[in-house]
Amino acid sequence: MGGTDPGRGARSLLPMMKPRSIAVIGASDDPTRIGGRPVRYCKEHFDGPLYPVNPNRPTIQGLTAYKSARDIPEAPDCAILVVPAAATIQAVEDCVARGIKGLVVLSSGFAEVGSEGAAMQARVAEIARKGGARLLGPNCLGAFNAQRGNFMTFSSSIEHGRPKVGHIAIASQSGAYGSHLFVLARQRGFGISSWITTGNEADVDVADAIDFFVEDPETHVICLYSEGLKERDRLFAALEAARKARKPVVMMKVGRSAIGAEAARAHTASLAGSDAVCDMVLKSFGVHRAMSADEMFDVAYAAARRQYPVKGRLGIMTISGGAGVLMSDAAADYGLEMPPMPEDAQAGLRKLVPFSNPRNPVDITGQAFNDLTGIVTGFLDAMIEKGGYDAIAGFFTSWPSAPSMSEPLRKAVKASAERKPGIPFALSILAPPAVWRQYEAEGFLCYEDPTRAVAALAALVGFGRAFERPQAAPAPALPAGALPAPAATVGEAEAKRILASAGIPVVEDVLAKSADEAAQAAAKLGYPVVLKVASPDIAHKSEMGGVMLGLADADAVRKGFAELEVRVAKYRPGARLDGILVSPMVAGGVECILGVNRDPVFGPVVAFGLGGIFVEIMKDSTLKLAPFAHDEAKKMIRAIKGFPLLDGARGRPKMDQDALADALVRLSVFAAANADRIESIDINPFIVLPKGGMAVDALIVPRKG
Amino acid sequence: MGGTDPGRGARSLLPMMKPRSIAVIGASDDPTRIGGRPVRYCKEHFDGPLYPVNPNRPTIQGLTAYKSARDIPEAPDCAILVVPAAATIQAVEDCVARGIKGLVVLSSGFAEVGSEGAAMQARVAEIARKGGARLLGPNCLGAFNAQRGNFMTFSSSIEHGRPKVGHIAIASQSGAYGSHLFVLARQRGFGISSWITTGNEADVDVADAIDFFVEDPETHVICLYSEGLKERDRLFAALEAARKARKPVVMMKVGRSAIGAEAARAHTASLAGSDAVCDMVLKSFGVHRAMSADEMFDVAYAAARRQYPVKGRLGIMTISGGAGVLMSDAAADYGLEMPPMPEDAQAGLRKLVPFSNPRNPVDITGQAFNDLTGIVTGFLDAMIEKGGYDAIAGFFTSWPSAPSMSEPLRKAVKASAERKPGIPFALSILAPPAVWRQYEAEGFLCYEDPTRAVAALAALVGFGRAFERPQAAPAPALPAGALPAPAATVGEAEAKRILASAGIPVVEDVLAKSADEAAQAAAKLGYPVVLKVASPDIAHKSEMGGVMLGLADADAVRKGFAELEVRVAKYRPGARLDGILVSPMVAGGVECILGVNRDPVFGPVVAFGLGGIFVEIMKDSTLKLAPFAHDEAKKMIRAIKGFPLLDGARGRPKMDQDALADALVRLSVFAAANADRIESIDINPFIVLPKGGMAVDALIVPRKG
Repeated sequence: MGGTDPGRGARSLLPMMKPRSIAVIGASDDPTRIGGRPVRYCKEHFDGPLYPVNPNRPTIQGLTAYKSARDIPEAPDCAILVVPAAATIQAVEDCVARGIKGLVVLSSGFAEVGSEGAAMQARVAEIARKGGARLLGPNCLGAFNAQRGNFMTFSSSIEHGRPKVGHIAIASQSGAYGSHLFVLARQRGFGISSWITTGNEADVDVADAIDFFVEDPETHVICLYSEGLKERDRLFAALEAARKARKPVVMMKVGRSAIGAEAARAHTASLAGSDAVCDMVLKSFGVHRAMSADEMFDVAYAAARRQYPVKGRLGIMTISGGAGVLMSDAAADYGLEMPPMPEDAQAGLRKLVPFSNPRNPVDITGQAFNDLTGIVTGFLDAMIEKGGYDAIAGFFTSWPSAPSMSEPLRKAVKASAERKPGIPFALSILAPPAVWRQYEAEGFLCYEDPTRAVAALAALVGFGRAFERPQAAPAPALPAGALPAPAATVGEAEAKRILASAGIPVVEDVLAKSADEAAQAAAKLGYPVVLKVASPDIAHKSEMGGVMLGLADADAVRKGFAELEVRVAKYRPGARLDGILVSPMVAGGVECILGVNRDPVFGPVVAFGLGGIFVEIMKDSTLKLAPFAHDEAKKMIRAIKGFPLLDGARGRPKMDQDALADALVRLSVFAAANADRIESIDINPFIVLPKGGMAVDALIVPRKG
Repeated sequence: MGGTDPGRGARSLLPMMKPRSIAVIGASDDPTRIGGRPVRYCKEHFDGPLYPVNPNRPTIQGLTAYKSARDIPEAPDCAILVVPAAATIQAVEDCVARGIKGLVVLSSGFAEVGSEGAAMQARVAEIARKGGARLLGPNCLGAFNAQRGNFMTFSSSIEHGRPKVGHIAIASQSGAYGSHLFVLARQRGFGISSWITTGNEADVDVADAIDFFVEDPETHVICLYSEGLKERDRLFAALEAARKARKPVVMMKVGRSAIGAEAARAHTASLAGSDAVCDMVLKSFGVHRAMSADEMFDVAYAAARRQYPVKGRLGIMTISGGAGVLMSDAAADYGLEMPPMPEDAQAGLRKLVPFSNPRNPVDITGQAFNDLTGIVTGFLDAMIEKGGYDAIAGFFTSWPSAPSMSEPLRKAVKASAERKPGIPFALSILAPPAVWRQYEAEGFLCYEDPTRAVAALAALVGFGRAFERPQAAPAPALPAGALPAPAATVGEAEAKRILASAGIPVVEDVLAKSADEAAQAAAKLGYPVVLKVASPDIAHKSEMGGVMLGLADADAVRKGFAELEVRVAKYRPGARLDGILVSPMVAGGVECILGVNRDPVFGPVVAFGLGGIFVEIMKDSTLKLAPFAHDEAKKMIRAIKGFPLLDGARGRPKMDQDALADALVRLSVFAAANADRIESIDINPFIVLPKGGMAVDALIVPRKG
């Protein structure tokens, strides 16, 4: 697979999304029926040949009908299939035979209804693939390009008005929710480029839609709704292409909760990985993850202006101190900085309006009512020229509703905005639709709710930063001579040997077969030492008392050896005992947990946290997809709440964060290189010291099945 | 103060909020000017005598004008004052002399502009108070009662349409934001009872507004916007009265962030306590704290139906699996349970619609399109009768937009809803306004965004639970013989003696004046022991090495004594040394921190967390207002993330949570009894043991100033 698949690529969706001619297979003469609606919608809006296929009628809705796709006099770019599931295989064969390269299968009754349907779906996809055609669906609500007018759907939402042509693209796995999103977008007056619902995703999926939108000059902003992501490499390539093209992606990825994930499984058989992993992945590509349609469209609307500030320094102007407080809270919530105006600028503005508060939020007070141009422009000019803000939010409430104020206010803000183009202005206003549109026409983002205005600006900053971010440094190579991950469970010593071969420092240990050997090893390693049971039959040593710490002399080691033998025999009679591992006791460090888990969608994910209760009870950990380089590892280390414990908090020694980061990097490289062989890795603890650090215990669980 | 103040009470606002006659002091003949607008608005909408006062004109806007309030032929219930600040004192005197009991002071130029204005404001309030009148403002945007039509404001927002009369009340400290809220509420088609802006709150404040709304039969839901709360006792009484009257309170309390709090201070001189404390207080009264106007009105709209489920078992019906997933995520986010339908009910429904998923979310699929009554009613009936849900959310997207489906769908849902009245139904629909209103008229809550529909239902459950909650058990009395908190800083030993007198167990200790005395004490207390510097000049002993742990014999104690003397002399030459405290070493327990901090608004607040890094680095702590009883203390203990460490996690012994709770209760009672004398108390650590527990170190900081 991957972006290099010759059958894929953004251009492969062109016949479907921008067809010159369309066939409707299973067309009905009744324009209200499911098979009649795509004919009707395309007839009304699509400016190109339309070929209804229906073996039983000479004409369909006044158009010449054909008995089969094979009979159509030219090869249409695209076919809409609305025949029953059972008839779809034949219909797809006919289409492919006629040379049709885009297939929109609206029919249901495939994978969503069971294994028989799944088999039919696989067959249909196979026929399309072999015929060099792309297939949307089945069990989807179709697609359209607003400019082209190819309304290839039976969703009645089209009937309530054709969408405005514009630059916001929508792709949704769910048909019904995709249609809901379309209607909401139309209600908001958004201009739409294309709309795609992917349904069962037998072929075209959300990643394909992203690919298409990235290459599509009409699309500036990409809105996505998905229940389950898949095919990591294609998805990543698509998201990275969007980032490089500076096209913001706003995504609702649902199934976050346990019940939601279960419902998603029931609905689309989505393979749900951990939502925390999904969240981390989306963030890493600068995707704005929206929790609701309102949030998605608030952000998409703002993003469509294509102004992406990166400093995130917000200036707030209000005519009400109260709103200024509220908006400052929102700025803090969404991570925007609000530097104050320079002192001299404040002094000047205080002269202009005596009881104003020109710090930031800049409260111009109701005084501006009496001199809009002087006060609004005066203050805004100062904010733009002296405040160093790269995003401005303004609260003017219903002032634009007053006919006497609407135009002067608009012009006053406009005059200031023109001084430094490129700074997004989000205004909280209340106004009749016509006035609202005038404000929008000046380039202002308009929101009723001031909190939402601030949130949208913060999202723009997120995009700006993602677009500017240099590509992460490549992860280093796996060291020459690194051992492969084991095919079956191995003991601690072997696990550490393998990890050591991959460049991870591990504590020295000696496998002792007798009490005497143990005492000799301890003398060589230096007291105090640790004794640990080494048995392939015992994975969780500490649970059965299989670890003895801080043994100070030969006598203690000998006794300990004997005692551990007894404990093993009691805990699991007949367990194989390879011996007892003797290691030096590592003191003066901080225990960490370095882990790897295989995400079913995204592959190996490295987790990091502090040992003991921090991960298990305080849930204080951080994740990153393997592999990664040193800087990313440093970010992981700084991201946990307990970071001060590594950084010299409360008079402790500062720990060697570079050594810790290096171990994380090495672990990530090893995990990525062995992605197919590993279910999980647990280095617990890895003890980081003021200088260096080492894995003290390790477990590698091979991949199941 | 308090609710028993004879001048206060809900009825005292009646002359202002429901006047029979109104005077306008500073009335202007020009209906567009600030002094002319209240005359115009009341003339248009208020059905009662209106008395403009203006010494310079015989008539105002066609009404007889009076030279002074004293000249008005009757005593009007209420006066609106729009004279300049400097003239307000005389105007208030005139009004009071005429027997006017409600004063709405729209004029600005008072406390918000400096100390001179503040003095005038205090004078004005004093005159009103002595005259038995309530005063709203100054520097406010006035008030109205929608039924009465007394639009006592110069806000032009009234001009764009009189609000519908209804049951949602709004009180806002900010005039401009209050006006913004009013316009948003009107746009949403809400019915309003009363609207009050409190401005500088020289007299009437948000608590008064709550009192009024609680008693007001027209008001069912209370919406509040505040920048700073004050007068704890009156506020608490008002919120508790609202809870008892089952009137939901939705509040935006802004100034949450550092910059927001600073802006709030600049704007209204609000005394900002900790936002975490404010949040805890509001929760304890069942107030829904809204972060935006949209959230506030989503909740108020739902609450206005006065259906408050308490079980919080949500049933979701959708026509789209995708929306079901999304809504399930929202349910999890907002803490609603989603129990599955009983297996037999599911089986029955699967027969009705083969590929439906009737678990919960109940996905009826697009099949329902073909048989609305049969499928929608069939599934909903089963959900209501067998699912045990007490709240239902439905996703029908744009189905109601189709003329052929709007009525059948509405009737189908209605038929099921009538089976068990009292269950709130929140529907996510897209429809033209007329259809929307038909759905609302059936009693359904309608939202475009399904996430917001679920969020609103969750808020109703929050209200329901708050309304049902029995009043918390009273805190116990302070033990007889409890010592008062000290007036000046005292040493650790004295602090522990005081806390012990209040019923908090403390570790035994002996103050030793010499190394010999220390060794004798240690022998008596039992080894190992702890030595601690006891000096009134050293508050933070551990910072200077003033604590020695685990001394095992007399020799170690003697040496330790000498060493501590040396350390004190080095650390702070000339420091008074009372001696060295000798205590037994307490082992085998968990260190906790029990603290008290005085919140400037709410008084003493007890904080609890685990010792060491948990509070300081992991920020894992919980708060409660003092005083409280045992059950509340138990809830605090269970609320921290680290609770498993007290509850036997990972094979540890379970600690005596009752003893810990009792110590918290005793501390809270002591703190409340000494509220005026204490700035803070720090019991760090309090060591809780498998049986019992004790304060090992304590610091009491007397209140400053």
